Amino acid sequence: MVLVATRNPLNMGAAARAMSNFGFLHLRVVNPYEMAFREARSAVGASALLASAEVFQSVADAVADCALVVGTTSVGSREVRHPVRRLEEGARIIRKRLPSSHVALLFGSERVGLCNEDLSHCHWLMRIPAREAHRSVNLGQAVAICLYELARNSKLVRPAEKKKLATAGEVERVYAVLLDALRASGYLEPRTATLTQEKVRRLLRRLNLSASDAEAWLGMLRQILWKLRSG
Amino acid sequence: MVLVATRNPLNMGAAARAMSNFGFLHLRVVNPYEMAFREARSAVGASALLASAEVFQSVADAVADCALVVGTTSVGSREVRHPVRRLEEGARIIRKRLPSSHVALLFGSERVGLCNEDLSHCHWLMRIPAREAHRSVNLGQAVAICLYELARNSKLVRPAEKKKLATAGEVERVYAVLLDALRASGYLEPRTATLTQEKVRRLLRRLNLSASDAEAWLGMLRQILWKLRSG
Repeated sequence: MVLVATRNPLNMGAAARAMSNFGFLHLRVVNPYEMAFREARSAVGASALLASAEVFQSVADAVADCALVVGTTSVGSREVRHPVRRLEEGARIIRKRLPSSHVALLFGSERVGLCNEDLSHCHWLMRIPAREAHRSVNLGQAVAICLYELARNSKLVRPAEKKKLATAGEVERVYAVLLDALRASGYLEPRTATLTQEKVRRLLRRLNLSASDAEAWLGMLRQILWKLRSG
Repeated sequence: MVLVATRNPLNMGAAARAMSNFGFLHLRVVNPYEMAFREARSAVGASALLASAEVFQSVADAVADCALVVGTTSVGSREVRHPVRRLEEGARIIRKRLPSSHVALLFGSERVGLCNEDLSHCHWLMRIPAREAHRSVNLGQAVAICLYELARNSKLVRPAEKKKLATAGEVERVYAVLLDALRASGYLEPRTATLTQEKVRRLLRRLNLSASDAEAWLGMLRQILWKLRSG
């Protein structure tokens, strides 16, 4: 569970309580609005969990050891460039992955959700199927619903997939070298650089690289980059 | 949705928001701790729903027109005398009933949940499958999870059952006459009267009387009561 740029500490406490209710005990926090969030009284029965939350400066750092990074959104797939899955379908995929690797589930801020930069770290997004006329679900309630759905039927968790996937940190290393290569190649135009960077990261995420494939790509790209710089 | 003896207006607002998210638009409130609950700021996007909540003095009044009354609890079936269903199973039953009749879903107060008197109005109870070590779910989050589960797969709602069930109000009329009859018969001992009354109500609820059967029982019991009193 990763809470990104959360504004209200009461929501962080509520998230911690729901995590404890459903057995998800590792909370990570990126740039919280209120640094004193650990004292939130809403973490009834989950104060230890909240106290042991790890704080990170960036989403990249927070998800570095995760092989699957899933964002949450209240909007449909037409409005974002990522694939959006309904909670039920998304939870099914996450449950399959959990036995073999770390999975990050990202929740954005109460006001604006996850920003594009945050989203570019995600393999895909998950949406709670709320009513079209009122899709914005309270953060603490959204966390509770998602974790309930993940914990539901957890007996049905299937054996781990054989292919060992690259962690987000490993993919990020590939990304960094690729980006350097693109920059060095003049592909990145200053005006559109940010957009392009996010596009590239999404492209990479969609590859679902295995750990060994990521290593291979890294080798190739490093070689290219060396050539670009020395050329 | 019936909130019974809720203490914190913020939870009532959160409940209203989740109701709006998942398309449940009729809120009833029994003896709220704070009568000014309608102004709760947590009802983001659902202030109209909260403003139109109906207030009742008793659970009996609040569920009078409902054919199925379901309570919520955080404890397992060993600790209560009612049948307790897991949320998923309970929601399946409720979804089948919704097209043909009113269903009441009761949530008790944050501190103690539903009391035995409240529970005696329920046909059965529903439990969110939280971790044994931390089963107490926040009220607003519990409402959100239950309504999510009810709305999930709502396409799968099946055709209404044929038998028209008695409403809680109709069953309550049977109960009242039956109780008078028991009282008149000397069955109710002053020391255990409350417990016995609750037991009787549960017994009646479990019958799942049809409307016409309830009418028939009422006729019989009235006759018995008349005899007891005039005898």
